[in-house]
Order: sequence, then structure tokens, then C-alpha cells
Amino acid sequence: MNPLRDPRDRRLPRIAGSCGLVMFGVTGDLARKKLMPAVYDLANRGLLPPAFALTGFARREWGREDFAQVVYESVREHARTPWSDETWRQLSEGIRFVQGTFDDPEAFAELRRTVEDLDERRGTGGNHAFYLSIPPSAFPQVVTQLRDSGLSDPKDGTWRRVVIEKPFGHDLESAERLDEVVSSVFPPDSVFRIDHYLGKETVQNLLAIRFANQLFEPIWNSQYIDHVQITMAEDIGIGSRAGYFDGIGTARDVIQNHLLQLFALTAMEEPASFEAADLRAEKEKVLRLTELPEDLGLGTARGQYAAGWRGGEQVGGFLEEDGISEDSTTETYAAIRLDVPNRRWNGTPFYLRAGKRLGRRVTEIALVFKKAPSPYFQHIQGSDVGTNALVIRVQPDEGVTLRFGSKVPGSQMEVRDVTMDFAYGNAFTESSPEAYERLILDVLLGDPPLFPRQEEVALSWQILDPITTYWSSQGQPEQYRSGTWGPTSADEMMARDGRAWRRP
Amino acid sequence: MNPLRDPRDRRLPRIAGSCGLVMFGVTGDLARKKLMPAVYDLANRGLLPPAFALTGFARREWGREDFAQVVYESVREHARTPWSDETWRQLSEGIRFVQGTFDDPEAFAELRRTVEDLDERRGTGGNHAFYLSIPPSAFPQVVTQLRDSGLSDPKDGTWRRVVIEKPFGHDLESAERLDEVVSSVFPPDSVFRIDHYLGKETVQNLLAIRFANQLFEPIWNSQYIDHVQITMAEDIGIGSRAGYFDGIGTARDVIQNHLLQLFALTAMEEPASFEAADLRAEKEKVLRLTELPEDLGLGTARGQYAAGWRGGEQVGGFLEEDGISEDSTTETYAAIRLDVPNRRWNGTPFYLRAGKRLGRRVTEIALVFKKAPSPYFQHIQGSDVGTNALVIRVQPDEGVTLRFGSKVPGSQMEVRDVTMDFAYGNAFTESSPEAYERLILDVLLGDPPLFPRQEEVALSWQILDPITTYWSSQGQPEQYRSGTWGPTSADEMMARDGRAWRRP
Repeated sequence: MNPLRDPRDRRLPRIAGSCGLVMFGVTGDLARKKLMPAVYDLANRGLLPPAFALTGFARREWGREDFAQVVYESVREHARTPWSDETWRQLSEGIRFVQGTFDDPEAFAELRRTVEDLDERRGTGGNHAFYLSIPPSAFPQVVTQLRDSGLSDPKDGTWRRVVIEKPFGHDLESAERLDEVVSSVFPPDSVFRIDHYLGKETVQNLLAIRFANQLFEPIWNSQYIDHVQITMAEDIGIGSRAGYFDGIGTARDVIQNHLLQLFALTAMEEPASFEAADLRAEKEKVLRLTELPEDLGLGTARGQYAAGWRGGEQVGGFLEEDGISEDSTTETYAAIRLDVPNRRWNGTPFYLRAGKRLGRRVTEIALVFKKAPSPYFQHIQGSDVGTNALVIRVQPDEGVTLRFGSKVPGSQMEVRDVTMDFAYGNAFTESSPEAYERLILDVLLGDPPLFPRQEEVALSWQILDPITTYWSSQGQPEQYRSGTWGPTSADEMMARDGRAWRRP
Repeated sequence: MNPLRDPRDRRLPRIAGSCGLVMFGVTGDLARKKLMPAVYDLANRGLLPPAFALTGFARREWGREDFAQVVYESVREHARTPWSDETWRQLSEGIRFVQGTFDDPEAFAELRRTVEDLDERRGTGGNHAFYLSIPPSAFPQVVTQLRDSGLSDPKDGTWRRVVIEKPFGHDLESAERLDEVVSSVFPPDSVFRIDHYLGKETVQNLLAIRFANQLFEPIWNSQYIDHVQITMAEDIGIGSRAGYFDGIGTARDVIQNHLLQLFALTAMEEPASFEAADLRAEKEKVLRLTELPEDLGLGTARGQYAAGWRGGEQVGGFLEEDGISEDSTTETYAAIRLDVPNRRWNGTPFYLRAGKRLGRRVTEIALVFKKAPSPYFQHIQGSDVGTNALVIRVQPDEGVTLRFGSKVPGSQMEVRDVTMDFAYGNAFTESSPEAYERLILDVLLGDPPLFPRQEEVALSWQILDPITTYWSSQGQPEQYRSGTWGPTSADEMMARDGRAWRRP
């Protein structure tokens, strides 16, 4: 069963079979705001089996009722589907809690007894997924405990899967070390690496747009496209994530995963199918071909947000944040130029940028076309007018925008840019599942196409490592005012190529 | 000065120099509803010179004041720009009237004295355009009178122009006879044939869309486009035009001019410039290459509207209309397939259809694309889903629509068609000039690109003559219910090619 493949009856819902989900890190933001509500929403949509169980594992001195209350509150606050007493009754009957620390073999033995008890009394059938919503430093320990306790070991005809959240290491070497540990316990097809961007509808729609249509693919190449801009802008700062973010920075935090995945899906050749192996192979092919700028000082840029504005509110700079040292060199803005010197993209660079405290929150892929070679529209030469753009809006306002030149009404042939819009939210009555809903369901179904495998992770670090190494020798990043669109060095980087960043 | 060419300063309005406009047929619908209001609107926009004069010529026993009153009422009722006492005062001072019949040399002598008087007292400078808004049967007589009275003869450095309205004959032979008369009096660059569709903003926008953008031209060919549908649907019947329409029919009335012009602009190669000679040359090239179906019985269709519905109202059939004989074989619906077997279009047919009393009023050019060859979207094969279309909406709701396949939200890769829209009216604050405004201004400026020349007229008749000849041997056209989308034979004609008409 493959969710991206043409289904025999595409309207038949994909429902997970009997199974349990064990969640590590249940007191964290991600678990409370995304994972628990996603589990409830899946149950509410009828996509979980009656014999589903949710087990929390944490240090807190909680009983089963305490954990059930935490899940309840998280669902009431963050679920996207309406409240249903019946769904909750059904779900809460399968809730369990195991108290313990990651270094305590006895706690994992207790977890094993809990899981076996669920198999017996709840009917979870021996199938269990372990969701590690915990700091990456704890991965090796937990994975090892899962092995030592026998939890990672499926009986015949059952499965055990592990779900890990980014960051998958902080460079190639650490990523490989992490993978050694994980893969020594779980076989590759039992490891689900979550990049929640791949769970987003608009990202999957990129595949439909490119390959279900005749319109776009013929012009999806360097003959017509001047360059591509992939932007992930946040308006917020680091918030309470200083401990995680300092020393990591924007490139490792979101470019290594989200932006390089968007890049790969945009730049890749047409896969033989949408099955995991074919899709991953095409993404890896393009990542492997990707070249960095020869001079990293000219072809990349970074910055740190300084004081400024967010909305109507005055905000402080990154170096003034709690938990950030005054001389931190961690970047909160990163821009890099990538080139894919193959037949499709030679001469058409990709510019990736991501940053915090920028003008507004937006993620988009913008294909910026070359100008039409039209001698009789000279007034648009040397100006921005007439530059076609196809923009895939990933968030918010998911959809597609096409910018093209149109005649201005009147007796002259004056051309001005206009846009056409397609808004995902307006076009469909079906509501978009949250990315985590989709991804958790895929884990329980064992459907891997939306999860990057280790090769992709390694290739991403291979692209990023020379950049972060170079930056670490360059001292303090440039400061940029909060609420602007990043450091001037990023604008200069584009200007050197005769281009400019979009103001999305 | 060329209005379609890149203007040196494109915001500088094009203002007509001193001149007069003489209108024949001032009691007709066209003059009252379109021409007189267009003259006022041009004056109101400041595009006419202070020394402008409008002279009416008619049989009515009117004086100058009577005619001025007729113009006044027409302007008050139909003008698109706001009322201005000052514009009207200025305009009405230049209004004149000459009473007479087309066969009366004395009336034309009087017209000549009026025009000379205007040159002297109003400053029209010897420049005059004669707008023949009269039945084509009267063209030869009026043109001859203009010659005999010396009115067609410009003095050095001044101009005389004649404007003629379709129909330009009713077949190739009559069109050539008409042209012989006209061209024996006026040189080719003084003859302005009005096809008001060419004055429409959306039609001119077709040039901007095709040639000012990089997006569309690469896929504007038979490699990607399956076929093109050009539709001009009216919801009204013949109204009070029985006398004109009977014996003419839809093909001669609108396909010979409007639809074949839209066809030529859609199918032509990129012209060397937008100057009249280059633009006309490209249109003629494609008209000359155009091929008719081998079997006209299979590749064309026609019909007559029967009783039925228009809006919520019950309406009678064509054969029951006042002034239409019971056995009239005049078609009110016509559909034809055309092929252009050149490198760009070989294998991609153009389907033209026009009709009265159809489902709704709409004129559009729809480029229907081939399906994407995507093995993993099999569920869309054999259905209409995933058929991309680019639709230029000429009227009403002028704009552009793009239809493409998008992923339906949910955990399957289901594709459904969605649309993106660009609406001319929403995109620009500039109001679109009425087609006649644009065309009258072009006549007064002497700018010919938007006027077909005789070669195009002749080529259009060459395409149409075999069809009307064939039809005249086939007896009564098929009846179709008013309010439907035409005769079943038209649907069958498409079905034989494995295609279907759009329901716009």
C-alpha cells in the first residue's frame, strides 16, 4: 500500500491496523501541541483502529490518569476536529503511562510489560511505534534501552518502528554516528525520520503540480527559468528555545531538512513512481549533483536579528535573549546559493534563505522566469515588469500564484504584471490534515515515501558542512533589524548575480 | 506613431490632431449606441482635439439642432464616462448636419461645403474621416459620391479616410467587387475596416500574453496543446435584425470576421513587430495555410434555434421570427474544424463555433492541453481530470483562467482540477476603453494595426466559401432548443474526434 501511488479506490480511507504508539517526551511542546492532538484527530476521522493504544513515557511522577488528563487538555486546546465524547472514550481507554528515566532498565522492562499487556487486553497485536520526541542527545540511550529490553524486536508478523525528529545530528559526522546507533537496533525500513514539511499538503501538491499536469513541466528548466528562490521566513524570534538554538543556528535548524527537501522536490527529475525508493532516489540524485559557490563568502550570507519591530511591538535582539551569550555567533538568518549543473538546471541557480524575525511568516518556492525576448516590449526591459513567476505558497495561505504581464487597458501597448491565484483553502471542501496527522498515520501504516532516509540526511549535511565550517571562521554574523528582510550582505549576494530577493 | 509598438513614453496619451468625422447612418443602432457615445468618451478623456467636428448625414428632415439633440440623447444614455457640461459644450459646437439621400450629388456638394466651412471656422485642417455605418449595399454609391464630390481627395498634407463596417461582402467574389469600388476611390492605407473585436482589450491582451511573457509561448504548440476551441455564444436571438440576418447566417455574420481574427491571432507566429504590415502579414500567413476538413459533412455543423428558454422566459424559434420565412435555411449556429498543418500546429485542430440562443453569452479562446503522460496518476486517465486549459475570456468577465490538476487534501494522491483566475476588471484601476473608442481614435490617428486589410478579408472568405456552398446544398439546418448549447450534430462532430465542447 503506497499513499502516493495511484490507489485502486482512491476514496477508500487508509486505516491503520491494530497497533500502539509509545511516546517519549510527552511533556514537550511538540507532543502537547502537535502529536497528541494529531492522534485524536486521526481517531476522530476514523483512521485509527479500535485496538489503538497511546503510551506515554516520562520522568514525572504521574499515574495513568494524570497522563490521560495531559492528553485530554492538549486535545481540547489544540485538536482541529470537533470534540467527540465517543472518540475520547475509545481513545482514553487505550492510554497508558510508564514512569522512568532514560537510563533506567527497569523502566523499560515496565514499558515492555505494559506493551505486552496492551497486546493481550487491548488487542494491539504486537505492533508498536516508538516516537522519540526528545533531545537528539538522548536518542542513543533510548534506542539502546529499546534493544536491551527487547522492545525493538518484533515477533513474526508484527512490527516495531522508531520515529525520530530532526535534528538528525549537527553535521555529517554526528549524523552518521547517530545513524549507526539507530540502525544497529532498527532495520532501515523501520526508521521513520520526521521532516514535518513533507507532511504538508502543499509540499505533496508540488508533485501533483509538476507531474499530473502538462502545463508546467515543459518550462520547468533552465531554458525558461532564470532562478529559483526558496524562502522560509519566520516573524518570531527564538522564544524559549535558546538552549536548543544557540550553537545550532538557522542553517542546521531548517535548511538541512525543510529547505533542502523543498529544493530536492523542486529540482529533481520525474521519479519512476511515487514509491519511497523511486522518490528518494531522485531526491538523492539531485542532492548529490548539487554544487556550492566557489567562494562561500560571496555565495552565502548570514545574520543575527538585532532589536527592531515585530508587528506593532518593539522587540530586542538575539544577543539580548535569555540564555544567549553576548558573543554568540549563531546565525538566525542564512542564505545560500546552490547550483545543479545538470541538463535541466545548468545556469539556473537556486537561492535558499531562512530566517527569524523577518517581515512576515511565509514559506514559498518561487520559480522566477527569464524575460521574454520581445523587441517590441522594450519599455519592460531593464525593469522588473514582465518577469513571470510561478510561486508555490507552502504556508500560510497555501496555494499557487502565477505572475505574468498583461496589457494595461488603454490605447497603448503598456504591459504590467498581474497575478492569478489558486488558494488551496478555497478550492477544496476537504480540510487539509495537519502535517503530523498525515505523518503519524503513515508511520502506523508503514508507508515511507514522505520520510527521508539516511542517505538524504547525509547528502544534506555534505552540502551544509563546508558552509557552517566556513562561517565558524568568520566571527560575528551581520546584525539585521527585527522586522526587516535580513542582512544587507544577503541583498548584496543577490545583487552580485544581478538578481534580487522577492518580498513575499 | 504606432499604438501597438513600444511607445517612447507610454504614458503620454495619444491625442488625435485637428480633424472631422462624418457619419453616415446616424439613425442606426450602432451609431446611437456605440459611435456617438464613443466620440463623447474620447472627447471627455481629452483624446480629441479642440478643433474636432462631428457631421451627420441622413435622409431625415433634421436641422443641426435636431441632430445635436440625437447625439445628446445617445451620449446621455450610453456614454461610459461621466457627464461633463464643458466636454459637451466643446463637442456640440462642432456638430453639423447635412440632409440628403445617398443618390443625391447636391447633398454631397453640401457636405463638401460643410466640411470646408469646418476647416475654415472650426480649424479641422482639411482632415476628414467618413464613417459608413450603413448597409453594405450602399457602400458603392456613397464611396462614388465621395469621389465625385471631391470629398475623398485630400489636399497636400491633409488626409481623407473611409471607415467601413462588416460585412465586407458575403463571399469572396462580392468582397472583391466591394474592394474594387472602395480602392478605386481611397488608397489602401486610407481604408479602415472595422472589426470591433480587434478593439477589445482582451483581444489585444492576447498579444501581450503570448509575446510579453516567457511562460506561455513555449507550450503554445501542438506538442503540448491537444486542440483549441474558439467560442462566441450569444444568448439572444436575431431580435429585429431579420432583414439583415436572413440569408447571411452566423458563419458570414461573425465567423468570417470576429472568430477568424481570434483564430489568426491565436495561431499566428510571432510577428516581427506590432506594426500593421508585420501583424497583418502573420495573420495572413496562417489564414493562407489553414485547411478545411476533407469531408465538410463531418467537419462542420450548423443549426437553427427552435423554441425554448432564454433566462426564465419562454421564447420562439428562428423560423417563427418576424421577417423570417418558414423555410429559411439560414443557420443561427455554426461550428467548423480548421487545421493549420505547419510545424507549430500540425495535429492540433482549431474548433470554431458561434451561435445565437445558446446557454449564455460568452466569447472565449480555450487552449486545451494534452494530458500529462504520468503513469502514477492513472485514475485521471480516461477522465476529464488533469486536462489543463488556458482560457482567454474575451467577454464578459474579461480575463484569463488557467485550469490544472491539484492534489486533493487528504492522505491519498488524488488529483482534481482547480482553476486560477485573472480578472481584467479587478487587476487594473484603468477602465477599459470601449472597443469603438479605441478604433475611432485609431482611425483619426491613422493607426492601422487593429484593422484587417483586404487580403485578410479575402482569405477569410476563401476559408468560408466552400462551407457555405456545401451547406446551401444540404437543405434545412438541424433545430436546437433555445437555451441549449447547439445542435447534436455539433456534439457528434467533436465526438468523432474524441473530444467534447467546453460548457463555458
